[in-house]
Amino acid sequence: MGKPIEIVAFDADDTLWENEGYFRLTEERFAALLAPYAPDDDLRARLLAVERRNLAQYGYGVRSFVLSMIETAIEVSDGRVPASVVQTILDEGRRILGHPVELLPGAREAVEAIVGPRRIVVTKGDLLHQEGKVAASGLGALFDAVHIVSEKTAETYAALFPDPDRSVMVGNSVRSDVLPALEAGAWAVHVPAPITWAHEEAAPPIRHPRFRRIDSLSELPALLAALA
Amino acid sequence: MGKPIEIVAFDADDTLWENEGYFRLTEERFAALLAPYAPDDDLRARLLAVERRNLAQYGYGVRSFVLSMIETAIEVSDGRVPASVVQTILDEGRRILGHPVELLPGAREAVEAIVGPRRIVVTKGDLLHQEGKVAASGLGALFDAVHIVSEKTAETYAALFPDPDRSVMVGNSVRSDVLPALEAGAWAVHVPAPITWAHEEAAPPIRHPRFRRIDSLSELPALLAALA
Repeated sequence: MGKPIEIVAFDADDTLWENEGYFRLTEERFAALLAPYAPDDDLRARLLAVERRNLAQYGYGVRSFVLSMIETAIEVSDGRVPASVVQTILDEGRRILGHPVELLPGAREAVEAIVGPRRIVVTKGDLLHQEGKVAASGLGALFDAVHIVSEKTAETYAALFPDPDRSVMVGNSVRSDVLPALEAGAWAVHVPAPITWAHEEAAPPIRHPRFRRIDSLSELPALLAALA
Repeated sequence: MGKPIEIVAFDADDTLWENEGYFRLTEERFAALLAPYAPDDDLRARLLAVERRNLAQYGYGVRSFVLSMIETAIEVSDGRVPASVVQTILDEGRRILGHPVELLPGAREAVEAIVGPRRIVVTKGDLLHQEGKVAASGLGALFDAVHIVSEKTAETYAALFPDPDRSVMVGNSVRSDVLPALEAGAWAVHVPAPITWAHEEAAPPIRHPRFRRIDSLSELPALLAALA
């Protein structure tokens, strides 16, 4: 506090724009598709387990999600799933990749309101898809830099924030945006999304002195003014 | 010429280390696996067509290759391919992701011999896999920066080479390493690999004044000395 903020970093998916909803819808269609082979709850748990098992080799992103859905379909059907279902899963993946980018309420205004500090994006996922979303969002020109990373750790933020004391990370994921940014010595602003991927869930560090929480990006300008 | 070189940029796959051979082997096993449904030549042509069609949405990398193999398998079998074959394709993808990183002859020595200019990597593909390969190569500490990009265009190189006149791109792909680097005004050193993905093939611009070709990275130090 007191020191002026020099960098405001934004997460992208589910912070600046809608994302998890598309995955959730796909998961619902996946469950319906596989209903002949596995009860719904069990299927989602198994898909999550497969996704987590594959993270270290596949990383994040839609292609990883599609590969994990195919693997889960084969697994739960004991190899009986027909090629037509696999094809539908491929089509579902393409549908996510092709969805329009819908900004979340207050996103553009929150970014525009930051005058002075550098504005950057720090997002994980696939290079091509994330670049495409930044372009489609219409926000690209507002940012000084866009960093697409394979994982968000304290080291990631330490490398991006030369002066963590004067840096703020804004995002919806406690696990990826809040905890590692705090660990790196930066401020973290949590903007919870309506739905969050189970893998990203974690308890918010509500007593941490550099942790803040807002309900929507519309509250960010006032918060940043209070920090400075 | 005459001006000292400030940046030497290296492509990674098939320039610093083996890569295409793993894809080629996988393609052979894929062809054998699908032999009941499609003759060999036709299958490879169809796989390449599917890969190219998917590039704009999937981008480069092993996961894209796996998804395109699965799609091709469904396509050539008219939807009759069994789940066991799809599972084998998934396993093959994991095998490529897990292969050891084998440096090409002279790679380490060529990088080490560059004293003075910044040494960087410019590679396309998946973030996680490329980062993993840089780490496994043991060359990571020799580079000042590693840039993993979604595509290599003249703009890519222009952004990385503040002074293209004093920058050199070294790589095996005429299409991705040589032509766009020359277009950006830099020098390009072509080091042909024993095998090259059909998509990366292009005629080398042998009369271009800033184009050079060497048979192996072992020849790079002498070439750079001659350029300076």
